[in-house]
Amino acid sequence: MFSLEHRDAGSKARAGSVMTDHGTIRTPVFMPVGTQGTVKAVQQRELIEIDAQIILSNTYHLALRPGPAVLEQAGGLHRFMQWHRPILTDSGGYQVFSLTELRKIDHDGVTFRSHIDGSRHRFTPAGVIDMQRSIGSDIMMILDECPPADCGYEYARRSHELTLQWAREAREHLERSRPRYDHAQAAFGIVQGNVFEDLRAMSAHGLMELDFDGYAIGGLAVGEPADVMYHITDWVTDILPAERPRYLMGVGTPVNIVESIARGVDMFDCVMPTRNGRNAMVFTREGPLTIKKERYLDDQRPIDEECECTVCRTFTRSYICHLFRAKEILALQLASVHNLAFYLGLTRDARNAILNDQFSVWKDAFIDRYLAEKAE
Amino acid sequence: MFSLEHRDAGSKARAGSVMTDHGTIRTPVFMPVGTQGTVKAVQQRELIEIDAQIILSNTYHLALRPGPAVLEQAGGLHRFMQWHRPILTDSGGYQVFSLTELRKIDHDGVTFRSHIDGSRHRFTPAGVIDMQRSIGSDIMMILDECPPADCGYEYARRSHELTLQWAREAREHLERSRPRYDHAQAAFGIVQGNVFEDLRAMSAHGLMELDFDGYAIGGLAVGEPADVMYHITDWVTDILPAERPRYLMGVGTPVNIVESIARGVDMFDCVMPTRNGRNAMVFTREGPLTIKKERYLDDQRPIDEECECTVCRTFTRSYICHLFRAKEILALQLASVHNLAFYLGLTRDARNAILNDQFSVWKDAFIDRYLAEKAE
Repeated sequence: MFSLEHRDAGSKARAGSVMTDHGTIRTPVFMPVGTQGTVKAVQQRELIEIDAQIILSNTYHLALRPGPAVLEQAGGLHRFMQWHRPILTDSGGYQVFSLTELRKIDHDGVTFRSHIDGSRHRFTPAGVIDMQRSIGSDIMMILDECPPADCGYEYARRSHELTLQWAREAREHLERSRPRYDHAQAAFGIVQGNVFEDLRAMSAHGLMELDFDGYAIGGLAVGEPADVMYHITDWVTDILPAERPRYLMGVGTPVNIVESIARGVDMFDCVMPTRNGRNAMVFTREGPLTIKKERYLDDQRPIDEECECTVCRTFTRSYICHLFRAKEILALQLASVHNLAFYLGLTRDARNAILNDQFSVWKDAFIDRYLAEKAE
Repeated sequence: MFSLEHRDAGSKARAGSVMTDHGTIRTPVFMPVGTQGTVKAVQQRELIEIDAQIILSNTYHLALRPGPAVLEQAGGLHRFMQWHRPILTDSGGYQVFSLTELRKIDHDGVTFRSHIDGSRHRFTPAGVIDMQRSIGSDIMMILDECPPADCGYEYARRSHELTLQWAREAREHLERSRPRYDHAQAAFGIVQGNVFEDLRAMSAHGLMELDFDGYAIGGLAVGEPADVMYHITDWVTDILPAERPRYLMGVGTPVNIVESIARGVDMFDCVMPTRNGRNAMVFTREGPLTIKKERYLDDQRPIDEECECTVCRTFTRSYICHLFRAKEILALQLASVHNLAFYLGLTRDARNAILNDQFSVWKDAFIDRYLAEKAE
């Protein structure tokens, strides 16, 4: 499903294509997060306008609400939400393990209580595949255990071993099960092992023996320092096969993303553009702004003067500042669309730089400008 | 500014055109409410898609936030919010008089405290015109006092006299002041007098002597029975001149609107389509639905099978039900757009029926179907 098109001359950055039955994804790529079958405050047709190539949704949330029966009746998530480009679904492992008080892990899976109504549920490696068959995502993630950043070596070792065991069970279940709808479903393994090189290496090699369609790096951006995240990413991408896509889960800031592209990552997702947008933080090429500050109330410029999104071509900082101060829903809509356009533009620019063997120069210029001291 | 095009053969219903420098409004017309310079949860381009001809905004809210200086710097509300069709602004009277604990009325105006930060403000007939000059609305409303439905005759009489006195002061100030931007601004008087025929007649005649560009009927839909509202509307439109547009403020349900069109009203505004939409109530030709009810979770039909709005052409009740249950912002967006499309379609259909001298037949058929007993 992956074609490696070009390696940047001066870094590990790569440009490629991920082929799915819902279309081809050009990498590096950022995937907007649509946890519950909608990217918060953004319409599907707006995602097309800003050229989102693929979105991410969440097995845990969709399993609880609306549940597999409703999704199956609709003909899968693509038809349910009327999004006809690719969808990747996270396995739900991260969400379940975040419910520290509400879940119990055993050898065969995890039992948890719903954050919505307290009802009891169970995720197993096979069950999570079945749920993703009901969703019909183009790329499914296997169930993993995602330990906290400071869990220590012994916990990390046992956790990685459990994740690898679950990956074997998932692999077997993938062979036994078939897509429910008329399109193929790929599956990615998730490399765990926390901040420990040897565990990460064992995890990556163990998953590679199982031959997944792609490999995710999980358990990063969970509280460790950025340099540790970059180091582990670099370490893992040195092990992973070149001919498979690499997905760094839940990362991150614009700088995190370009630094990780430099270390050979192809795919990203993060709630930051939408969540921060809803909190009035908007991204610009010169760094983020808190657009609801009074200083922007008479600023007649767009959020980012170089941005070509509809929001920047139409509305001033002054108007968007007013909308936030007046607590209007349109504020959330406009900030979310612009921020996603910014992230999508970032990975698009990164790809073009790679194809022109200019990635490192482009990256340094982007970061210098983004982090430069500003008046704000 | 008004051209009466056609009178329905079997009722007082009329079709006309209101001419403004931002375009011509075909009546009867429904005006979506954009209190703070945005129709809640709806984008300006979506208003164009569903063919909103004019929107309403609010002098009271805009005076407090963002205030006249920000609006003037933007070049008026049209440019501030990038809405290039007509805008009508309510005077703020209704909002100020709703602040029963926070305002004090005197002969020359009203002093009140902001609902946002408690700061002290004063509205006078001239000041409210000045504020609407800063906004740049195509149609300005004069300052009126809007008493409660059960205020009694004496209060209603004094209130109508005060409103008429303020209308004289507003009329004088209109002559003395000029539009700030490059378009004309019309002004409508507001007929008050509560539920009392003689007061309503005195109010209407008094305003007509001042020769406003149009006449609103205020102080209805504030708690009185529907038949009283219809009767007073009928009574007032019998007095008002045929060659001026009539605007029934804050009305109402779909049935209220068609019944008031039958009584000679041309223009309407109401928060119901957007506010109720945000509360999961969606309008259909067969009556309203509470779309978040569990029964709709597997309903593969659109909200209204005959509706041609983007929401109904794209999404199922099942998906929208899920969005509401999951508390997603997209739910508010979709329900608001559909409900506005429903209201705009209603007044468009009414106009066509009038032009074909079929209004009464159309109205009875609409109401019969809308109010018929349903399974829900």
